Amino acid sequence: MTAAAADTGLLAPGRAASPAADEAGDAAYLRALLDAEAALTRAQAALGLAPDTAASAVTEAAVPDRFDLASLAVRAREGGNPVIPLVADLTRAVGEEHGPYVHRGATSQDIMDTATMLVARRVLAVVLSDLERCARALAGLAAEHRDTPMAGRTLTQHAVPTTFGLKAAGWRSLVLDARDRTTAVRDALPAQLGGAAGTLAAFTAYGAEDATALPAAYARELGLRAPALPWHTLRTPVADLAGCLAFTSGALGKAAADVLTLSRTEIAELSEGSGGGSSAMPHKSNPVRATLIAAAARRAPQLAATLYGALAAEDERPAGPWHAEWEPLRDLLRLVGGAARDAAELAEGLRVHPDAMRRNLDLTGGLVLSEWLTASLTPVLGRARAKELLTETARRARAEGRPLTELLAEKPELRNMDLDASAGPVRAAGSAAVLTDRALERR
Amino acid sequence: MTAAAADTGLLAPGRAASPAADEAGDAAYLRALLDAEAALTRAQAALGLAPDTAASAVTEAAVPDRFDLASLAVRAREGGNPVIPLVADLTRAVGEEHGPYVHRGATSQDIMDTATMLVARRVLAVVLSDLERCARALAGLAAEHRDTPMAGRTLTQHAVPTTFGLKAAGWRSLVLDARDRTTAVRDALPAQLGGAAGTLAAFTAYGAEDATALPAAYARELGLRAPALPWHTLRTPVADLAGCLAFTSGALGKAAADVLTLSRTEIAELSEGSGGGSSAMPHKSNPVRATLIAAAARRAPQLAATLYGALAAEDERPAGPWHAEWEPLRDLLRLVGGAARDAAELAEGLRVHPDAMRRNLDLTGGLVLSEWLTASLTPVLGRARAKELLTETARRARAEGRPLTELLAEKPELRNMDLDASAGPVRAAGSAAVLTDRALERR
Amino acid sequence: MTAAAADTGLLAPGRAASPAADEAGDAAYLRALLDAEAALTRAQAALGLAPDTAASAVTEAAVPDRFDLASLAVRAREGGNPVIPLVADLTRAVGEEHGPYVHRGATSQDIMDTATMLVARRVLAVVLSDLERCARALAGLAAEHRDTPMAGRTLTQHAVPTTFGLKAAGWRSLVLDARDRTTAVRDALPAQLGGAAGTLAAFTAYGAEDATALPAAYARELGLRAPALPWHTLRTPVADLAGCLAFTSGALGKAAADVLTLSRTEIAELSEGSGGGSSAMPHKSNPVRATLIAAAARRAPQLAATLYGALAAEDERPAGPWHAEWEPLRDLLRLVGGAARDAAELAEGLRVHPDAMRRNLDLTGGLVLSEWLTASLTPVLGRARAKELLTETARRARAEGRPLTELLAEKPELRNMDLDASAGPVRAAGSAAVLTDRALERR
Amino acid sequence: MTAAAADTGLLAPGRAASPAADEAGDAAYLRALLDAEAALTRAQAALGLAPDTAASAVTEAAVPDRFDLASLAVRAREGGNPVIPLVADLTRAVGEEHGPYVHRGATSQDIMDTATMLVARRVLAVVLSDLERCARALAGLAAEHRDTPMAGRTLTQHAVPTTFGLKAAGWRSLVLDARDRTTAVRDALPAQLGGAAGTLAAFTAYGAEDATALPAAYARELGLRAPALPWHTLRTPVADLAGCLAFTSGALGKAAADVLTLSRTEIAELSEGSGGGSSAMPHKSNPVRATLIAAAARRAPQLAATLYGALAAEDERPAGPWHAEWEPLRDLLRLVGGAARDAAELAEGLRVHPDAMRRNLDLTGGLVLSEWLTASLTPVLGRARAKELLTETARRARAEGRPLTELLAEKPELRNMDLDASAGPVRAAGSAAVLTDRALERR
Repeated sequence: MTAAAADTGLLAPGRAASPAADEAGDAAYLRALLDAEAALTRAQAALGLAPDTAASAVTEAAVPDRFDLASLAVRAREGGNPVIPLVADLTRAVGEEHGPYVHRGATSQDIMDTATMLVARRVLAVVLSDLERCARALAGLAAEHRDTPMAGRTLTQHAVPTTFGLKAAGWRSLVLDARDRTTAVRDALPAQLGGAAGTLAAFTAYGAEDATALPAAYARELGLRAPALPWHTLRTPVADLAGCLAFTSGALGKAAADVLTLSRTEIAELSEGSGGGSSAMPHKSNPVRATLIAAAARRAPQLAATLYGALAAEDERPAGPWHAEWEPLRDLLRLVGGAARDAAELAEGLRVHPDAMRRNLDLTGGLVLSEWLTASLTPVLGRARAKELLTETARRARAEGRPLTELLAEKPELRNMDLDASAGPVRAAGSAAVLTDRALERR
Repeated sequence: MTAAAADTGLLAPGRAASPAADEAGDAAYLRALLDAEAALTRAQAALGLAPDTAASAVTEAAVPDRFDLASLAVRAREGGNPVIPLVADLTRAVGEEHGPYVHRGATSQDIMDTATMLVARRVLAVVLSDLERCARALAGLAAEHRDTPMAGRTLTQHAVPTTFGLKAAGWRSLVLDARDRTTAVRDALPAQLGGAAGTLAAFTAYGAEDATALPAAYARELGLRAPALPWHTLRTPVADLAGCLAFTSGALGKAAADVLTLSRTEIAELSEGSGGGSSAMPHKSNPVRATLIAAAARRAPQLAATLYGALAAEDERPAGPWHAEWEPLRDLLRLVGGAARDAAELAEGLRVHPDAMRRNLDLTGGLVLSEWLTASLTPVLGRARAKELLTETARRARAEGRPLTELLAEKPELRNMDLDASAGPVRAAGSAAVLTDRALERR
Repeated sequence: MTAAAADTGLLAPGRAASPAADEAGDAAYLRALLDAEAALTRAQAALGLAPDTAASAVTEAAVPDRFDLASLAVRAREGGNPVIPLVADLTRAVGEEHGPYVHRGATSQDIMDTATMLVARRVLAVVLSDLERCARALAGLAAEHRDTPMAGRTLTQHAVPTTFGLKAAGWRSLVLDARDRTTAVRDALPAQLGGAAGTLAAFTAYGAEDATALPAAYARELGLRAPALPWHTLRTPVADLAGCLAFTSGALGKAAADVLTLSRTEIAELSEGSGGGSSAMPHKSNPVRATLIAAAARRAPQLAATLYGALAAEDERPAGPWHAEWEPLRDLLRLVGGAARDAAELAEGLRVHPDAMRRNLDLTGGLVLSEWLTASLTPVLGRARAKELLTETARRARAEGRPLTELLAEKPELRNMDLDASAGPVRAAGSAAVLTDRALERR
Repeated sequence: MTAAAADTGLLAPGRAASPAADEAGDAAYLRALLDAEAALTRAQAALGLAPDTAASAVTEAAVPDRFDLASLAVRAREGGNPVIPLVADLTRAVGEEHGPYVHRGATSQDIMDTATMLVARRVLAVVLSDLERCARALAGLAAEHRDTPMAGRTLTQHAVPTTFGLKAAGWRSLVLDARDRTTAVRDALPAQLGGAAGTLAAFTAYGAEDATALPAAYARELGLRAPALPWHTLRTPVADLAGCLAFTSGALGKAAADVLTLSRTEIAELSEGSGGGSSAMPHKSNPVRATLIAAAARRAPQLAATLYGALAAEDERPAGPWHAEWEPLRDLLRLVGGAARDAAELAEGLRVHPDAMRRNLDLTGGLVLSEWLTASLTPVLGRARAKELLTETARRARAEGRPLTELLAEKPELRNMDLDASAGPVRAAGSAAVLTDRALERR
């Protein structure tokens, strides 16, 4: 691997300089691989299968700085995975006496899968923290704008009024759904230990009375869950990660889609705290955070699909499906890590323009209130007459360019009704405020 | 829609004539749509917002046979969804008096989403029952073959011995993971009710004191969960379905991949209970069930990706993402429904050939035992000498075409050791039996 | 297959009642399968390998109406494909004398693949015709609005002016790209004929001197291309279809995305000829055609991915990859068929509102002209001073809510310059008109 | 971007140390971005819009070594793409006099898209060269094994004989299909130049008489094709790349799938020239090249799907779809680049074991010849009697474990027929040899 091939994030502004990207880079994987090897020897020592001095020796040698990432990457080609050259280098580093205890009884996949779970746990910690930040900021927005009316839009058209509070509460509920799913997956991440074909056979041969005690001891060393079975081709943990990451990406993508729409020049109801510049137009302030979150949401589902597709893995360890997991899973982790950071920043910095929301609500000359007006007039006029009156007046409103409520107020039969257009939107937003309150009760 | 366009399952042997396909066909959707409409009026009656006679009238009229599926399909084009023409037809069927109570306060998406959840619940009931059948049959296989040795294969090559019991137990653990995830999703399927923009506004206008009581009453009528918020563009329920269905498909796909491999002519360790014939070759017995499950597993991840992609839905109700969900979700439901049926049949009928497993184990002349032999000889010879001896003897075994254990038995230094090749595989399968026992404890 | 499982298009307004859906329904597949069987016997007769009477007998019997689709679908389960029961029924229908000439020497996949190519050709004919209609309508729009200025938007913000003519010309160029790719694929669709393992062996055994003449004769009967090799697991034709269909769907999706944006209530620069209604809001006119096209564009890429994934098909005929192709390819064909119809209707009926385009252009108080003004003032003031002046005046324009050009006109140093705001946009649209003209030269 | 986040290929043995990965790394992108900027100024100089000294100054400054990749990556976050900080750095490097000519009139996307096309062209050159190498090696194998019989396998079961020559010829035909599609796409890769909204407006403002001459001049500088229109949101070139790369990956994946199957321990008809080792089992020789190619084939379709999905890009430049292209396209390029390298090595080193092919052919006791024997006996016995005889004898063959041909030879009525089992497979492979010859005529 020459330096030319390295990826430093030039094409990835969504994750550049993010803690999640740091936790998922090659150096982080190397650290996790070494953590996994050291824990393996320690776990054997804990069960009396290896001397404590071996455990110490391996742990001391398993320091990332002593290993050459680029060389490992190139040498991984021969056997098809980076653990094989890493074990060779680590064994040499540990020295002749304790070298035989390095990787003893394990297969490459034990180490690789375990390291992947460690990386996932570290990235998800960052993700969860950013989701909490994001949810907190959205709770603030929802509470602040509990009664800020805005147009509810369906199929791109103004439909009936809603509130920005309810919209923000909805975004938050998705973020909390993502948090809950991600937390559950993180808490279940298992260590992997099975040996060549998942039977723990070598450990028995090396003298373990009950080799099945080893995976549990191993998991304890690493703070991961003990696996019920070796999962070399039972890929539930990877599929669960795929699911929660695709979900999180999409959940954040919903808010981003709305921000992109609502910050359009013509709509201008929202703007990002610090919009991004342009190389050509000095006046522009682009919704960059939302753009990068939206881009992540477009990629995550297909990366997850590749991981779901890898469930159908043949034999005790497969030729292809497993290898196809590594980069998509890492990409998902750092995509979502970057998107969660951007979402937290977006939510914390979002500027809301209630006056623009109000101005836009009036765009249809009150037509956005037609559902509410029909329902309101029904007790007075009967449903048929109410609907007829609204339909006819709406036609006039469009034709004459006058507000619907103004035209209605001229009708003698409605003289005593309160059709104040300015009060309308709030009242016409129905249960938006109550729904917002209830949604905010969720922790 | 002319009859020419109808899909009766000709291209879908995996789901043809399956209960799941019946529960997800257009007729089943029509039934669910009508169930949703009738429940809406009943829920309003239950809260005193509509007369009981209206509830009865709508419920009585909402009978699938009275509606013309093909006509609804064609008329759905105008507004872009089938609820619009259905409401027109249902209102007409209910008659002038109670017609105004049809669909009152709801939006198309309330009905469509609710109907989809009803369909999902019905299909998942079938899926779960077939997963249980499948798990039961696999438990039987795992117990029966607890000590049946076979080659553990990694990257297509014999690695070390395992047992068929452990393999079957692994398949079962995936099926149980699928069951658990599917059960959780099924139990959380919510009704949908929000009105035009998710604010429940029309219900307030029609006189509800607390319109937020309505979704709960609605859900009760249908046996679905009450939604915390209207979820027109908060698509957690759909994404959760996508995840559990993609997972289930892949989980079954793992067993199918193994069956396809192990029933190859050269391997012949397994065969399907009743293999499928061929249009050209009368002697062939094809692993058809496994083939169809494998085909489903290749499709499901991408269908799920489309659904995860639809999370990023703009506005209060979106122009495209929602519409893009309908067919992929239905396809996933019936694909998985078909695959679960096939998996149950496959597991119940699977024929296991322990003699072929044994014969294949000997193919490498004992090399498959080399890990175990090295570990076993280490206490006697020391690790270095044990490894050297094995490597050298393995070379001879390959060159002379003689079994490794036979050659080892000739070594004077090993005279007193028990290297009986026939016992080897079972002992060399390490903790396979114990792992199988533990896995079978899971219910 | 019970009637309950049938799909009549209820969930598919995008393709309901479309000619493409008719050409891709189960009945159309049945017809194509029968066409393929009849052509096979005729081709053998043409080469003297079967009596002409057999060819006539098979051709006469191969009439769709005589076959029971639902029964074929169910019986397809046993062998995993519908050709096996179809051959049984067709053989019976042909009768004892000529029955042995039915399907002689072929394998199920020969017939299934050939039928799929026939269906594809028929659907693509419809698609191509609709793409031509669409391109024609777009050419008209581009010519008509060659000089209609509108805001060019980047990252959702007004950037600099463009014209609607250039936008429409761009849409058209994508449609022509789709047409060209689709035409090339259609013209290359091959017949499939190889026998059980793609060696044409049975034909030799049945007496063909040069069995390789048979595929060519077969293709001639069907108007398909003669295959260079049997392509049971060389799936170039399917992958090529996947590519051109995913491309076409996305190409139409681009125009739909723009229509959805530009018909937003706040933007209102475009509206669909006949917008769709709503079940809740009588005043709404939804961009339904664009919505359905957008929904198709969200689904097609993942369907294509499944087909690309099926390229990696093992052996002479595979267990899963092939079976996984059938429904996704059919879905792609009718999705694209429906989208092309909708796109033609959309383009033909699109209403353009130049006044709204003009009004929106003024929204930024001339800021949208800042790039053009900077460049225009540079010769007079020098680049540095021009930029400084613009930046400062833009700040004032935003603060005072006055048009940028008005403020600039007050500057003594610019007194003699033509800064007429009304001429600005057209001139500031640069080469839009010339580019439009050139694009329209393409046929 | 800290070093921790860098990706040096540790998780990517399929592309590690490949020329394609070097041509697609961040350094290669930086070079291409600088090439694009320099060419832009040179093109303006060539048309008299900028002084030649500016062209020289920019070209001299545009040297990758002078720029800090990690800093660019981090600063790309603000505006959402790396061109913005690069232009700042390049402008500074060029100095005050000619700095204003840097990036003049262009938008970030002009540079980014053009650079991407340059990278794609460079990677595709490597890919094409490896595809040629691979095709050459496969042609050699096909010619050498033109008459080497082996079992044709369908749905995992032996069907009828084929030859290894035909199999290799089939692999080659896919490789040539990939080459042809890739060549066509490479030859059409266009430069991108449109300015802020694709109107070339700034160039007009800066004095170009015919700004539309500029893109052509620009393309000439870079050896790319002149675009018919700016394609900021007309993404045909990206979609075409997606299609040819997904196709190539799948085409190579077909051969890999076969190699993986045929090198299974039980089948052993093929082995990789130099198999990869294992960290646990010294005796293993894994098909590593095929495994890595297979892994790539599992990932490419979903990456392509993301790119096809990005076709539906709104406005003049989109907020998300474009940004979602960068990494998937680069990943596809280097995945396919790595797979093509591995495929060339695999084909060149593949070891073929005709004796194992022969031995496996006999596994079914001649049943694999049943189709051929039936056809051969039909002229002598009539079709009905031939089929009856075969079916009955096949049953005996299976029951008694004796070869089918041996049992047939005992039948008095067949005494004079040549049923020599050893000749059977070759003759029973039908037109395999002729088809191989024809396929090899393709260049």
